[in-house]
Amino acid sequence: MFQLDVRLFRDGWVDLKSSFLQIPGSVCAPCGFKVAAVFCDIKKLGTGKGSEKKKKGDLALIVSDVPAAVAAMFTTNQVCAAPVKLSARRAAQNVVQAIVVNSGNANACTGRQGVLDAKKMTQLTARTLKLKESHVLVCSTGRIGVPMPMKNVKRGIGECAPLLARSTINAQQVAEAIITTDTRRKEIAVEFKIDNRTVRIGAMCKGAGMIQPGMKQATMLAFITSDVAIESAVLTRALKIAVAQSFNRITVDGDMSTNDSVIMLANGLAGNRRLDGVSPYRQKFQRALDLVTLELAKMIVRDGEGTSRFVTLHVHGARNAREAESAARAIANSSLVRTSWCGGDPNWGRILCALGYSGAKVNEAMVDVGYSRPNDEKIRWGFRRGEPAGSLQNLAEITSAKEFDVHVDLNLGRGQFVMFASDLTEDYVALNKGDITEPGTLSG
Amino acid sequence: MFQLDVRLFRDGWVDLKSSFLQIPGSVCAPCGFKVAAVFCDIKKLGTGKGSEKKKKGDLALIVSDVPAAVAAMFTTNQVCAAPVKLSARRAAQNVVQAIVVNSGNANACTGRQGVLDAKKMTQLTARTLKLKESHVLVCSTGRIGVPMPMKNVKRGIGECAPLLARSTINAQQVAEAIITTDTRRKEIAVEFKIDNRTVRIGAMCKGAGMIQPGMKQATMLAFITSDVAIESAVLTRALKIAVAQSFNRITVDGDMSTNDSVIMLANGLAGNRRLDGVSPYRQKFQRALDLVTLELAKMIVRDGEGTSRFVTLHVHGARNAREAESAARAIANSSLVRTSWCGGDPNWGRILCALGYSGAKVNEAMVDVGYSRPNDEKIRWGFRRGEPAGSLQNLAEITSAKEFDVHVDLNLGRGQFVMFASDLTEDYVALNKGDITEPGTLSG
Repeated sequence: MFQLDVRLFRDGWVDLKSSFLQIPGSVCAPCGFKVAAVFCDIKKLGTGKGSEKKKKGDLALIVSDVPAAVAAMFTTNQVCAAPVKLSARRAAQNVVQAIVVNSGNANACTGRQGVLDAKKMTQLTARTLKLKESHVLVCSTGRIGVPMPMKNVKRGIGECAPLLARSTINAQQVAEAIITTDTRRKEIAVEFKIDNRTVRIGAMCKGAGMIQPGMKQATMLAFITSDVAIESAVLTRALKIAVAQSFNRITVDGDMSTNDSVIMLANGLAGNRRLDGVSPYRQKFQRALDLVTLELAKMIVRDGEGTSRFVTLHVHGARNAREAESAARAIANSSLVRTSWCGGDPNWGRILCALGYSGAKVNEAMVDVGYSRPNDEKIRWGFRRGEPAGSLQNLAEITSAKEFDVHVDLNLGRGQFVMFASDLTEDYVALNKGDITEPGTLSG
Repeated sequence: MFQLDVRLFRDGWVDLKSSFLQIPGSVCAPCGFKVAAVFCDIKKLGTGKGSEKKKKGDLALIVSDVPAAVAAMFTTNQVCAAPVKLSARRAAQNVVQAIVVNSGNANACTGRQGVLDAKKMTQLTARTLKLKESHVLVCSTGRIGVPMPMKNVKRGIGECAPLLARSTINAQQVAEAIITTDTRRKEIAVEFKIDNRTVRIGAMCKGAGMIQPGMKQATMLAFITSDVAIESAVLTRALKIAVAQSFNRITVDGDMSTNDSVIMLANGLAGNRRLDGVSPYRQKFQRALDLVTLELAKMIVRDGEGTSRFVTLHVHGARNAREAESAARAIANSSLVRTSWCGGDPNWGRILCALGYSGAKVNEAMVDVGYSRPNDEKIRWGFRRGEPAGSLQNLAEITSAKEFDVHVDLNLGRGQFVMFASDLTEDYVALNKGDITEPGTLSG
């Protein structure tokens, strides 16, 4: 378990370390959630490389003991996978009890058969678990354009169901089964009081590649469970706020996937008075959810494909928040800025260049660009008000570290935006350049 | 000299091979242009790596015997270098006689001193050559944020002026002096008849990195000379058309530089009747200029930093031309698409994914994605009307070549766009990641 060191920035930077207790178990930490994962050979098909992934699992079930309120957000990519279309429709009905997830195959760009296969996966899950089919969602991640190996999926669901348990070990296995090129599982859970009852939020996600800087949503699968009792509409609003300041503020490679999904289930078993639109505990719940999603989002960036550095980018002084966001995204997605970060190079010139084409209003003579150690208030400036400032050697002391902050002040207004970015490395290219000796490996 | 194989696409693909004669000499091919280049130690300063670049030159003069009509286009980046600001102002006055160019230092983000230095460079050139200072333009490329070593520049201009000559060798030396991370010089010249007089257009450029997919203009320095007699307004219009379909259709890394400049001088010494807005020869002149700029643009992509493949991307069937362009740019700038090209992987899934977030209207069930050999009409489809089609092995036969074409048809309308792109390689990252042991090497 790692130490909570998150500071939220929605209402300024707020230290949450002391407010919430971190607990083990991720999605199984809240009462009434059982999970399990198995390997059923989805990852191996067509790649020949699956053998080493074998014991990691590629199919998982996340099930609530009782029907749960649901909030969900999905990719805004117009080309979205069959499971995304189906799950979005079902989540809109506000009650869900189970999610079936697989890695190794995204079921994207798979045509009419893909739509049938996604539905079939929920049907098989519902039958096996004796649930309503409309209460089952499905998520897929992995290769694009390859038919789902439904025989294996069917076997996997059958083998997975009897293993369901509320168990930290099982949760870890699920967190491993949903990853693709991630190098480690990503989990978190916290506990806090509402209404004198103990409430828990647990979560896991996968990220790594095809991670895009938001628009509506970043690229990943994330599953969040809670035993809080909450109205669906309040849950949906809370999730939107949390995603806007976490998953929508990260970028790995600027590509928005076809399969992004964030799904949250809240089954009410904590027994608190149901949170509604006027509950005094809304804010506390929001903070907890903010913390969980932000921690997961940062884990995704830190484990981004080939990533060697983690950069927190602060843009201040834009004419408005929208322009601050444009400026931040231009910087965080610039190949030249990201390669300079890879080399630990405090290249503020490339940052200025990206600012200049970002779409945000920039007056070169007003701009400040500087660097600091993470969360350190002492900023060393490289460029101040249109003039080079300070020595590069001095700045490189900061940027040669694995993690550092970049500060940009346009000095034109009050717009600001924070985002979490990573460098562009040779390893990213090597990981993604495919393998023409084995051209069955489209991945998404 | 290479064989002309360009086909223009403005009015459909037109074969120009037979229409124009390619000649040697690049910017010295037209009558009345003298050039020279010297090494004056601009490249070496601050990098320590300049020694191997030494004999390549880093300062050049391009001079017309008589005042010439000028057309010029510059970066639309809000953060633009001091020489860009100065040259843009002077080019607007329509008469220019000389250009002083340096590599090794971009004179960008250099504050007030940079503005003074750019002006000083034109002043020194004008004095040495006995020209009006307002008839001299200046272009710089290289490191950002480092003061111009003016003592060296002054010496360079003094040494360069006596070497001026209309000479193929000199033109080659200039083409080498303006490059930075380019691996080879980029030159072309053509000859054709107007009004029974022989007219010539010669050109050279540098590109390599910070090459961005247009908006208003791609990243590079390009110098075009001609001995045609032409009205300034007609020249300006012709250059805009030519740039729109050449430099504005290329991308290397999606970064728009602070220093992009395309400058064309036409001195009228061919003795043709001056081309005006109604001249019957306008179209022929346009074709020649189109050919020259397109050939240069393609050279830039082929020599892009770390580039290992050259891809011609055809988007058809968008609802309109603007959406076709958005779709093409999203594909050509996607890190995941470009890394797949690097591996020779016919990964149409990533192309679909990029289409989906491009901003162009996409209906997955209508989309076709395919590949062909360059200029080959036989397209092998990977995805047709929403369904996977054809074997990847089959497609990989095409995409494993150094050059291939990608065809996307959205089947929604008549909008189309062609652009020239490259892959993203480990070498690109290695070239750009900087060197923290020597953090004086900001480059732009």
